[in-house]
Amino acid sequence: MPEGTSARPGIFEQDLATNPVNHITLSPLSFLKRSSRVWPGKIAVIEGDRRFTYAEFALRCRRLAGALLKAGLRPGAAAAVLAPNVPALLEAHYGVPLAGGVLAPINVLLDPAGIAFILEHSECRILLADREHVEKARAAIDRVGRAVTLVEIHETPGAGAGGRIGYEEFLAASDPHPWCLPADEWQAISINYTSGTTGNPKGVVCHHRGAYLGSLGNALAFNLRPETVFLWTLPMFHCNGWTNTWAVTAAGGTHVCLRKVEPGAVFTLIAQHRVTHMCGAPIVLGMIINAPAALRRPLPVPVLIMTGGAAPPSTVIKGMEALGFSVVHGYGLTETYGPSVYCQWQDAWDDLPEAERLARHARQGVSTLTMEDLAVVGASGEELPADAVSMGEIVTRGNVLMKGYLKNPAATRAAFAGGWFHTGDLGVMHPDGYIEVKDRAKDIVISGGENIASIEVEEVLYRHPSVLAAAVVARPDEKWGETPCAFVTLKEAAAATEDELIAFCRERLPHFKVPKTIVFGDLPRTATGKLQKHVLRERAKALPSP
Amino acid sequence: MPEGTSARPGIFEQDLATNPVNHITLSPLSFLKRSSRVWPGKIAVIEGDRRFTYAEFALRCRRLAGALLKAGLRPGAAAAVLAPNVPALLEAHYGVPLAGGVLAPINVLLDPAGIAFILEHSECRILLADREHVEKARAAIDRVGRAVTLVEIHETPGAGAGGRIGYEEFLAASDPHPWCLPADEWQAISINYTSGTTGNPKGVVCHHRGAYLGSLGNALAFNLRPETVFLWTLPMFHCNGWTNTWAVTAAGGTHVCLRKVEPGAVFTLIAQHRVTHMCGAPIVLGMIINAPAALRRPLPVPVLIMTGGAAPPSTVIKGMEALGFSVVHGYGLTETYGPSVYCQWQDAWDDLPEAERLARHARQGVSTLTMEDLAVVGASGEELPADAVSMGEIVTRGNVLMKGYLKNPAATRAAFAGGWFHTGDLGVMHPDGYIEVKDRAKDIVISGGENIASIEVEEVLYRHPSVLAAAVVARPDEKWGETPCAFVTLKEAAAATEDELIAFCRERLPHFKVPKTIVFGDLPRTATGKLQKHVLRERAKALPSP
Repeated sequence: MPEGTSARPGIFEQDLATNPVNHITLSPLSFLKRSSRVWPGKIAVIEGDRRFTYAEFALRCRRLAGALLKAGLRPGAAAAVLAPNVPALLEAHYGVPLAGGVLAPINVLLDPAGIAFILEHSECRILLADREHVEKARAAIDRVGRAVTLVEIHETPGAGAGGRIGYEEFLAASDPHPWCLPADEWQAISINYTSGTTGNPKGVVCHHRGAYLGSLGNALAFNLRPETVFLWTLPMFHCNGWTNTWAVTAAGGTHVCLRKVEPGAVFTLIAQHRVTHMCGAPIVLGMIINAPAALRRPLPVPVLIMTGGAAPPSTVIKGMEALGFSVVHGYGLTETYGPSVYCQWQDAWDDLPEAERLARHARQGVSTLTMEDLAVVGASGEELPADAVSMGEIVTRGNVLMKGYLKNPAATRAAFAGGWFHTGDLGVMHPDGYIEVKDRAKDIVISGGENIASIEVEEVLYRHPSVLAAAVVARPDEKWGETPCAFVTLKEAAAATEDELIAFCRERLPHFKVPKTIVFGDLPRTATGKLQKHVLRERAKALPSP
Repeated sequence: MPEGTSARPGIFEQDLATNPVNHITLSPLSFLKRSSRVWPGKIAVIEGDRRFTYAEFALRCRRLAGALLKAGLRPGAAAAVLAPNVPALLEAHYGVPLAGGVLAPINVLLDPAGIAFILEHSECRILLADREHVEKARAAIDRVGRAVTLVEIHETPGAGAGGRIGYEEFLAASDPHPWCLPADEWQAISINYTSGTTGNPKGVVCHHRGAYLGSLGNALAFNLRPETVFLWTLPMFHCNGWTNTWAVTAAGGTHVCLRKVEPGAVFTLIAQHRVTHMCGAPIVLGMIINAPAALRRPLPVPVLIMTGGAAPPSTVIKGMEALGFSVVHGYGLTETYGPSVYCQWQDAWDDLPEAERLARHARQGVSTLTMEDLAVVGASGEELPADAVSMGEIVTRGNVLMKGYLKNPAATRAAFAGGWFHTGDLGVMHPDGYIEVKDRAKDIVISGGENIASIEVEEVLYRHPSVLAAAVVARPDEKWGETPCAFVTLKEAAAATEDELIAFCRERLPHFKVPKTIVFGDLPRTATGKLQKHVLRERAKALPSP
């Protein structure tokens, strides 16, 4: 046979197939197994007065896996948890996949109908519910057309009286499952329902490979180390805590659980445990900045706080820095396991004037190391130039992306159409390759044919000293099609009039972008702090004609 | 169909196969692509007065890929490089795999016969040779029974006169290859020949997946960051520089190339570029410690130095710490992409007495995060207890392991027999899960039926103030079978007699472990600084009868 046309495999492929020694499933289960061997005596989990070492944490997760199997969990089936940030929810991130199951973390602010939808859709037959949410869990189960086993999560044994299953008894009665990995790293590890500002939520199916790689990418981006003390101010049920349920364990750090995010508790725990890292939506940052002086305590060590979900206004970044926090701004969706884009700091920015520095800082940034590609594309899918002004859809590609939506092949196909994952967010690419989110596609206000990014108007409103929160949506208008309508919450004891805020915006924005209407009051939010703009759009539509 | 026996796939697998958006080949090529986008203007590579930004580094690698294809490199074929730590060798770590090829880095200390063996065995048709090694490269090619294209690596253009191909012209004449990834992450990325202390070297075939994961594991273990400045005191041709050719790029750090490791150059470059990380065999550490005072310069920032290959004697760790270096001790083989085990520091060790602290520090340690398992097994493959005394073979398992040996299925099978990769090294597992290498299986001295780890005897000899280097091998003995025979190099201007050293050992070792013979002189080493114990064994055998 002439050279170069031979059908035989190259010499570097002959007799060199994978084997069970050199090709191992990528799974975050390996993180806990390893940390329990490297740091068996180190505190892995703290909640109130409870402490679990890595050896204990691992044993509890192995017991949970054994208990779930004993309770009838089948391989590949879902097991749901309805809980705030308590150790049991963290343990479920290991115990459920170790049993071969798929974790369904449920938002605790959902009502029984919302919980029942998830149990039905994910065909879940077991639900672990925190003591505070047991009644709601029962009500949800009553709506489901088949038996669902309920395990009640209490800190201490004793809940098992009267036929009820308590979490601690559930663990104690089981045999610890041996460490094992799924046969295939593409196997599902979790089903995370989007918070769904409208209609039924979609079930985002995550896989072991993505969870493993996403954790490593986050550990590198946010410098998670064995010294890391991570305070759980972000709900674990939100994209598995942006993979930190796994990544902090991978690093051998310490998880500090927190049932309810309140400024006093946050400052106290930071001081008590020498917290180094935390995460939260901008609303958490706002809560910290606006905390009463009596609740504040100095930070014993610098705290890196990752934020995402919406761009933090520059004033918020500045306020956090003044308190000693270092803000890293990320961007992502449930479909990307939380933030997979982050604003990588550049040394050269240190010397920029403050306003410019903050503007760079507020951009969403670049892919984490384990994601692959990031672009802004136009209507026909073409990549737009990195010129800071060409607005298009933000798209991404890489290993830290969901398998797809459960039982929704049409939505899955649409999400992955044209060789990219479509975020549905609009943004621009700056010349330095950093993206900046301008708005959700549906949050753009189109006034007289001009696009107005609501976020740009909100950013200006946030700069007004009396404004605590602001949200801008489209208000139907006969002449302009739409005009920007701002909903504003003022700070306590602060005052501002509609005219004053409009004048403030006029000085800082092109006239067509200035809100024509200002409405004062509280802003509707989802459980995870996301603004419910669809509610505001309805309110704007219902306003009496100007 | 009854529940639980259904043959249909679970709901989390239906319509949820991988696609080209959410499942991307793991390859270190992605590291350079990303860093050239995130840090285009940052200095990526330094050599003497030359500087390449990440944009330039990436373009040069893309040009190299284009040039190799133009020169006839076929997908899946090897391209060899014979060079010290110059930018071209670093570029080949990206340019060759980007062209779909397999990099064969060759040890510059090999003679033409050794080089020809590698060219023949890997069926290589192109060789890039550094200007210092061109004549040897020609001599090697003359021994090979087919045409091999030779490209001469010079810093500046101009070597192309007279029909010779110069590296800079080779790049300049090519079209930059577009970024692309291999179709399969199991594809070979490099072929690294073991330094082969005896017989023909074996060709270790590494794959893209392992290179990617090994790099991430090293980046996390050794805290490689964008701020990292890595000084190349370890040959890149040694296990691809323990994956640092890729890992430093992944972190967005700066590579400082160094053609020849000399104490003056090392101290000067550390001071000039504010080096943060470096690697080297213990002999490099010894060179630094024993550098003349006139060549020493203070370290501007603390330098983390990773060492491996052989356990650094406690005195060496102590000496390095006194100079401001922080030593991390690793362990691995070419088959594990260099160190995949490292001595993870534990906070509790800070408070130990010095001797105990150094003893912990000198152990090889635990798996990196991206390896999977590590154990010590007995003769029949059973895992030995973690009791610090049960000696057996060190075995490992994980994704950072070679595909196998090129054209040597028997050796590949033997290496992966019984569900473990066999290192051939003997050691113990301590109760805390840290391994300690006791010796190469063949370096054990068996005297009167008792095993003597040569390393233990060497460690004692190193503590003697006059000893610069020491190596202990078995000397055949009629009565005892074998006795320990020590080969010792004394420090300059130092003096010690055989009796004095034997007495020194008697005070510190059980009598059966004390060397019966001491031979003074230089120690034979391979290009990478490994002791050639087989040479010493021959010398010991040839000694006149006692």
